[in-house]
Amino acid sequence: MTEVSKSTAAGSVGIEHPRDSYRVLRAISTRWGDNDVYGHVNNVQYYAYFDTAVNGWLMSATGSDIRQLDAIGIVAETSCRFLRPLSFPDILQAGLAIEKLGTRSVVYRIGLFGNEDTQPAAVGRFVHVYVDAVSRRPVEIPVDIRRALQTL
Amino acid sequence: MTEVSKSTAAGSVGIEHPRDSYRVLRAISTRWGDNDVYGHVNNVQYYAYFDTAVNGWLMSATGSDIRQLDAIGIVAETSCRFLRPLSFPDILQAGLAIEKLGTRSVVYRIGLFGNEDTQPAAVGRFVHVYVDAVSRRPVEIPVDIRRALQTL
Amino acid sequence: MTEVSKSTAAGSVGIEHPRDSYRVLRAISTRWGDNDVYGHVNNVQYYAYFDTAVNGWLMSATGSDIRQLDAIGIVAETSCRFLRPLSFPDILQAGLAIEKLGTRSVVYRIGLFGNEDTQPAAVGRFVHVYVDAVSRRPVEIPVDIRRALQTL
Amino acid sequence: MTEVSKSTAAGSVGIEHPRDSYRVLRAISTRWGDNDVYGHVNNVQYYAYFDTAVNGWLMSATGSDIRQLDAIGIVAETSCRFLRPLSFPDILQAGLAIEKLGTRSVVYRIGLFGNEDTQPAAVGRFVHVYVDAVSRRPVEIPVDIRRALQTL
Repeated sequence: MTEVSKSTAAGSVGIEHPRDSYRVLRAISTRWGDNDVYGHVNNVQYYAYFDTAVNGWLMSATGSDIRQLDAIGIVAETSCRFLRPLSFPDILQAGLAIEKLGTRSVVYRIGLFGNEDTQPAAVGRFVHVYVDAVSRRPVEIPVDIRRALQTL
Repeated sequence: MTEVSKSTAAGSVGIEHPRDSYRVLRAISTRWGDNDVYGHVNNVQYYAYFDTAVNGWLMSATGSDIRQLDAIGIVAETSCRFLRPLSFPDILQAGLAIEKLGTRSVVYRIGLFGNEDTQPAAVGRFVHVYVDAVSRRPVEIPVDIRRALQTL
Repeated sequence: MTEVSKSTAAGSVGIEHPRDSYRVLRAISTRWGDNDVYGHVNNVQYYAYFDTAVNGWLMSATGSDIRQLDAIGIVAETSCRFLRPLSFPDILQAGLAIEKLGTRSVVYRIGLFGNEDTQPAAVGRFVHVYVDAVSRRPVEIPVDIRRALQTL
Repeated sequence: MTEVSKSTAAGSVGIEHPRDSYRVLRAISTRWGDNDVYGHVNNVQYYAYFDTAVNGWLMSATGSDIRQLDAIGIVAETSCRFLRPLSFPDILQAGLAIEKLGTRSVVYRIGLFGNEDTQPAAVGRFVHVYVDAVSRRPVEIPVDIRRALQTL
């Protein structure tokens, strides 16, 4: 599938960073129902892993329940290149890195690794835009979250 | 969120084709659990809609159970730009178009529309690569599927 | 599987009411990812159908967004007997009936029917207990919801 | 919610076995999307935990990929009583016990425990009936699986 991937607009996402290049790795256990009729994890579930890795890390790194803050991260864009199949059962590692840190938004790069693998099974891109929790208008990234992001 | 989206690599996907520019629209009903803690459909579910729209249409257009063919479509890459929130309950329409039809792969553009909306709530990109159902080695797109794709 | 089911505690749920015995039928379209490795809808998804049918009907019958009311329905117990396989693609019908209407709780019986089937593919039981939206202490079923339930 | 639960047919399931009464505990990490609009894990996901705990343990205890055996376990019935809310993030423990081991079927009792809790957040019942992988006709529980079940 490499050939196809190279020719796509999202190809630039796919410089394949190995597992040890990520400062943060989050463990995620696959579930029976993640596998689809073709016997491997369905593409949709990879995005559930991204969501879980990013938000779980933010809670852990800031020590707060980010869902209760005045500003919340809304997902503006995501993408994923699927390089190798994943399956149940497995304990994946999701590597988190920052591709771009703006004033009101942050772009994560996420590498998904099978249990013992050093090369990614998938590489994703995940864009959070911060908005006021009530009005849902764009606001600056909260200070505590920015501080955590700067350590990635 | 436009500002952020424009600056991303996937931005070129996002020329916003209105609802009536799609030759095929597939109805998808949202589910209670699609909404997350922030009260709108979670980003992950949009990819479930894409999967469902593409594969459901392929089955309908070819009149065959594509899961039983000698060659199956494996997802090599997906992306989505989220433009407007969606929610439960709603009956969405997923517009399907071909961005690129290759020998062994096809790139779909998918526009997701809230029930009465003419402008998309999200625009996705979905890449299927065809592989032999047993060996999982790349093969040409099956004739019946190619014929269906040429009508999109 | 009848033999097994008969011997279970939940067996009494399973008097098989045919499709035309339900006053309310809610359409639910299956999704590609509902099917698991064995080629049929995974047991977990049936509960997503129940959730969607009950809450979708409550919103429709009361004309209000039940998530915004002072009292919300919390699920205290559910069960399902699986009688016939379901699959993607299909538009199911979920029949809703009341098994018991209490002061603070309601027990639904739900029959799931494949597109043209008159006999259920599954029979479920779904218990909602009403609680104050803030304190989460049990309260009486809201008047508008009770009125809707009395028509079932 | 105790009052309601006591009066239900499935009440007999709910003798609340504490955590240390289970010989087998399986760790399951919750995901961001498990939480619904009311801020806790949606009832549907509990069944995904059951599926994952039972099948994951069967694979581990038999040392085989149960999906490739001549006989497969089909879910005939499930139920769950919800006693305490669960949330993301958490690493749950699913306790597994046998309620009844038949010739062709097995009934599991599953206790779900929040990370440090000794009392269950939910108690489930999960019935597997074994069928021939091809014909889907009932057959005896495979020898390797029966041997594993007898250790529970």
